[in-house]
Amino acid sequence: MYKVKVYVTLKAGVLDPQGKAVKGALHSMDYKEVQDVTIGKYMELMMEKTENMEEKVEEMCHRLLANPVIEDYRYEIEEVVPQ
Amino acid sequence: MYKVKVYVTLKAGVLDPQGKAVKGALHSMDYKEVQDVTIGKYMELMMEKTENMEEKVEEMCHRLLANPVIEDYRYEIEEVVPQ
Repeated sequence: MYKVKVYVTLKAGVLDPQGKAVKGALHSMDYKEVQDVTIGKYMELMMEKTENMEEKVEEMCHRLLANPVIEDYRYEIEEVVPQ
Repeated sequence: MYKVKVYVTLKAGVLDPQGKAVKGALHSMDYKEVQDVTIGKYMELMMEKTENMEEKVEEMCHRLLANPVIEDYRYEIEEVVPQ
């Protein structure tokens, strides 16, 4: 079994209203040292062993998990050893 | 300047309809080897150097960035050296 961790973030230059709202909220809570906030997604996929693992993950990210027009993604694949 | 990476995930046992939907979509796209999908948030905060950095980040997570009733969080703090 494999655990795939996928991180999706907005490309630089794409407006991030959610991040702006969180930054505003943090400032109003007096965390003035926060300069910038960006918000993305973090996904964990459990996958059975398969051929061309990395290729498949890349494809899934590109086709469904991220929107490559406005988002960047990266992923880590790690084997899960059953206890 | 510091970059704080915050990962927020649903606690085990909390229903994750979004993850279920993504899993269903992946299956219908013929990625049958995907067993499970969970979806969380990934946030990047840029912060000025401040006292009790870690304590502050912990507090921000607990008070605003995550909902500790249904979510777990973890974070990494790394120094950003200007080029």
